[in-house]
Amino acid sequence: MAQTSVRSSAPQPTGRTAAKRRQIVEAALDLFLQQGYGKTSMDQVAADSHVSKQTVYKQFADKETLFREIAHGVTANSDHIVDELARIVDVPVADLDDLRRVLQRLARRYLDAVTAPHVLALRRLMIAEADQFPDLAHAYYQRGPRRGLELIESALRRWAEQGLVSAPNMPTAASHFAYLALGASQDYTLFHPSRPPKPTERAKAATAAAETFLAAFGRPREG
Amino acid sequence: MAQTSVRSSAPQPTGRTAAKRRQIVEAALDLFLQQGYGKTSMDQVAADSHVSKQTVYKQFADKETLFREIAHGVTANSDHIVDELARIVDVPVADLDDLRRVLQRLARRYLDAVTAPHVLALRRLMIAEADQFPDLAHAYYQRGPRRGLELIESALRRWAEQGLVSAPNMPTAASHFAYLALGASQDYTLFHPSRPPKPTERAKAATAAAETFLAAFGRPREG
Repeated sequence: MAQTSVRSSAPQPTGRTAAKRRQIVEAALDLFLQQGYGKTSMDQVAADSHVSKQTVYKQFADKETLFREIAHGVTANSDHIVDELARIVDVPVADLDDLRRVLQRLARRYLDAVTAPHVLALRRLMIAEADQFPDLAHAYYQRGPRRGLELIESALRRWAEQGLVSAPNMPTAASHFAYLALGASQDYTLFHPSRPPKPTERAKAATAAAETFLAAFGRPREG
Repeated sequence: MAQTSVRSSAPQPTGRTAAKRRQIVEAALDLFLQQGYGKTSMDQVAADSHVSKQTVYKQFADKETLFREIAHGVTANSDHIVDELARIVDVPVADLDDLRRVLQRLARRYLDAVTAPHVLALRRLMIAEADQFPDLAHAYYQRGPRRGLELIESALRRWAEQGLVSAPNMPTAASHFAYLALGASQDYTLFHPSRPPKPTERAKAATAAAETFLAAFGRPREG
């Protein structure tokens, strides 16, 4: 879980304190996933993160604060993914061949991101705790899946203006692209967290998603 | 959770015993979802199901047995859903208009099934406990999502033989249909279990999935 980043509105600690906070957050995330939020105690978190109980309580007032901090880490990570996707779609596209390449890259990067072990772990934790922390589950959805869909929609609108894409309903078309790309692999890995799809499978899924999307919504450029 | 059905290889109890087992299973499922499998005790299950501790232990030797019984209930319910979907695709289809109607009905029924509160609850529980019970999560996936995909694939092959559908890869086309239909709603409800999609939203999603699928894979019948 080394890649899990954490962000909060408080000033960011540095050096040894930051390293300790990361250790605590990573141990807590593993424990929450292995045995559930409810069963995990701050004592276990201290033991698994190899820091003293006092340090855990000094950094995180209680278990809920720790959970909320992890959830904020989710949103920071989502920002990073969405920024990467934005860079992929933000290139000049002259014709359907260009568009095919961009859609393949977009699908592939999106798929890589959502099936990465730490992203999947946080996703499963948010789903598991959606009854107890509906506000955090909602915030996760808004900051992650929702923003991904919005980004795709805005790119599709641009390509529609160029006459390369045509769709009766743009939000629906964006959602269709996203779940053509992610649906099967994401569904499988939610139930098989130790078996993420191989790079060749992700490449194949991304290519197929772009093909199906263009067959349904692609329009050859006129003139 | 009244619709949760339970099946096991043991002889099925009837009458009062069956009713008590249902009460226990429903209370346990709620507790597992609210606070996690790990934190839930058999004492709590007894209290919430309004039966004595002795009765709980007589029916289910321990907490793991109870959890496994719930997971078997999942598979029984999946069988029911797959049977219903099989009846929808098992009708004569003469042309693309017929096929459009069948695909809409299929998408709608599938979507209704996976967003039903008790199905979603069991799905979230399996995802949450996939680290602790990988065998059950895998069995759930095989019996549920996997069989749905196989059913769609076999229907598509039939329609391809009729010349109504054309796809370079049938398993991929089947998966594309499934996630066009389910992806967006299922993803949303995993994070918002108390806000299942409204019937009008499900109808719209089913119609859109059928349209996109046919735009990509539908072929007008020759002759």
